Amino acid sequence: MIPENSMTIVACPDSFKGSLGAAEAATALALGARSVFGPGANIIELPLADGGEGSLDALLAAWGSNQQTLSVHDAIGRPATARFGVSADGRTGMIEAAEANGLPQVSDVPLQPLRADSRGVGEIAVHLLNAGITEIMLFIGGSASTDGGTGFLNALGVRFLDAAGFPVAPGGGGLADIARIDPSGLHPAASAACWELAVDVSNPICGPRGAAAVFGPQKGAGADDVSALDAGLEHLARILAAQAGIDAAEFLEREGLGAAGGLPACLVALLGARTVPGSTLVSEALDLEGLLADADLVLTGEGRLDSQSLGGKVVDAVRRLSPADTPVIVIAGTVELDSARCRAEGITAAFSIARGPATLAALSVDTASLVRDAAAQACSLLGFSTLSTRAYGKPRSPRP
Amino acid sequence: MIPENSMTIVACPDSFKGSLGAAEAATALALGARSVFGPGANIIELPLADGGEGSLDALLAAWGSNQQTLSVHDAIGRPATARFGVSADGRTGMIEAAEANGLPQVSDVPLQPLRADSRGVGEIAVHLLNAGITEIMLFIGGSASTDGGTGFLNALGVRFLDAAGFPVAPGGGGLADIARIDPSGLHPAASAACWELAVDVSNPICGPRGAAAVFGPQKGAGADDVSALDAGLEHLARILAAQAGIDAAEFLEREGLGAAGGLPACLVALLGARTVPGSTLVSEALDLEGLLADADLVLTGEGRLDSQSLGGKVVDAVRRLSPADTPVIVIAGTVELDSARCRAEGITAAFSIARGPATLAALSVDTASLVRDAAAQACSLLGFSTLSTRAYGKPRSPRP
Repeated sequence: MIPENSMTIVACPDSFKGSLGAAEAATALALGARSVFGPGANIIELPLADGGEGSLDALLAAWGSNQQTLSVHDAIGRPATARFGVSADGRTGMIEAAEANGLPQVSDVPLQPLRADSRGVGEIAVHLLNAGITEIMLFIGGSASTDGGTGFLNALGVRFLDAAGFPVAPGGGGLADIARIDPSGLHPAASAACWELAVDVSNPICGPRGAAAVFGPQKGAGADDVSALDAGLEHLARILAAQAGIDAAEFLEREGLGAAGGLPACLVALLGARTVPGSTLVSEALDLEGLLADADLVLTGEGRLDSQSLGGKVVDAVRRLSPADTPVIVIAGTVELDSARCRAEGITAAFSIARGPATLAALSVDTASLVRDAAAQACSLLGFSTLSTRAYGKPRSPRP
Repeated sequence: MIPENSMTIVACPDSFKGSLGAAEAATALALGARSVFGPGANIIELPLADGGEGSLDALLAAWGSNQQTLSVHDAIGRPATARFGVSADGRTGMIEAAEANGLPQVSDVPLQPLRADSRGVGEIAVHLLNAGITEIMLFIGGSASTDGGTGFLNALGVRFLDAAGFPVAPGGGGLADIARIDPSGLHPAASAACWELAVDVSNPICGPRGAAAVFGPQKGAGADDVSALDAGLEHLARILAAQAGIDAAEFLEREGLGAAGGLPACLVALLGARTVPGSTLVSEALDLEGLLADADLVLTGEGRLDSQSLGGKVVDAVRRLSPADTPVIVIAGTVELDSARCRAEGITAAFSIARGPATLAALSVDTASLVRDAAAQACSLLGFSTLSTRAYGKPRSPRP
């Protein structure tokens, strides 16, 4: 045990997907550090997420809040139960869109790519607005819908009307019929609220890189469906741009609006939502930067450290927000990046949890203890030199 | 690149058995350290061995000598070529016994456990004595013979005679017939020479833990052969003890004399040979302790770091001889010891070369680059904190 009373260590991993949740991973890293630095070290466990799966849990853990649930409609209009979170101060709400419009929830029946909508997500938002919440973070992705966010806005009271003045059919299949958007029924608290959308793809709303062309097929859209959805999204986008006074050409090209079936389009145009990378949204919500500013050592981790980790993932946020003179150690199931690349990218060192030849299954069984030990090995090295007071080249005492 | 001009690093691994020789492993460790500490670091590559396979190569590398070869006889009397080494100053000779009496060399024909002898090993010794070498290190193990070292001594001129005064048959089968040992023909330089035997087993010469009972079967001895060899070794040991003025009971119990078919028995009794652990003999020959005393960082490694590593293996010697305030990092194919055990045993930290799920075959293909990168990751962590000058708790500059 190496005493180091004044040391602050932040253990802030992502989950090890399929093996260990972020909270358990943070605990494992903390235990490893504790075994080296002793009871005096100040170790902060801060499970993180990149805006995808686990983000709600990460925020709830950091907020010290319990999850709440709401009866909503799933992407094809059936009753469903969605989880969401509210910060302890009651100001911030957090929605994982896929809790309501997720693809897995509607995969028990034949997929309905033209019908699926985002109404259920809006229902959660209405609940939050009714509760007086003024800042809503919306993590999207994994959706079944390709409706450009019309279902969401409809739940908030906006009407999407055809040329005859009737509401268009729900889902992406009805978008082409929209002639007019009537925002007069919009929830009175919606415009004043702060909407933040976690978006991790750069796809535009339509076109060959758009929501329908790229993500439609995995939602069950055949070639004809993709064409119809794409045309509908472009049509919607032009109307939204006109309504919001945004240059249509720019709006059609804007990166990220094609996420989650175009869900951001309506929120950006009609609610002034801001789109940010998911890991940024989580980082900001947790004040990651503030916590890391005080850290003497940062331990993070994830299932696989590779080039993708450096683009908007948890490790990316951690390395960017860590002070330059604070060592950042990554413990991962698999480490694809070599030492030189790690250092060039602001990661001091990265170690796999593998202790030798092993199958993925074996590493998945015992992940927590492997993470703990890998962290301890790394901390031991750091602790050794951190606490060594001798100068190089001086004579030293023999090993006892 | 972190400049650290005054730093001395010793890279002193064992081989990674079946994957990477000790010299290549030392180079890989050194390259990893170099990538972190830069051209100014003083990095010493010192491939080690535990007295077994690779020991000759390790000493030749350290000595800067080339291997030499000699025509000898193998364990069953056939012509063979044995490698050996001589130190650059011409004073010390190094023999790997198995080069002459090794089991693999005679495995092309049915094993002859009663016939096999250690004559060829003695032939190398004669060659060294003839060359004026006064210190002979003999690494034994892997032998085909169970002759108590009679073949070796016979090559040096000692005669083992039966009751009628005739030489007994070569090999363990003739031991029971020995009535008298005639040392009058012993090589004139043999007695004055310093003989050092690397012995890594604790077995006595005979009995249930003796050379015949424990190692005989793997040399082809059936139950009757084991009995005959065991009786012969005990008979020889009593004669040797009497001849050398050693207490017979003590000699029969002495640990290590049962190594390599009892080869140490004759050398200890008739030549005054000293038996030492193999890793100690290598360490002493290379002045490992002196080199480590000046090290600011020690990098070692082997195929598998486990409990056995701590008992007479290379890692054991390295951790014992490293100064207490010098970090010792082990890079291994497999790391069985956890962080707490490592630290308790004088190993600062240990890391596997595995970067995630991998087969043994995959790790064996790319061992050198994996060792290099694991060393770089570890050094990076050490280098970071070693060179960090800030005090904990102080404000620091943001990451660029």
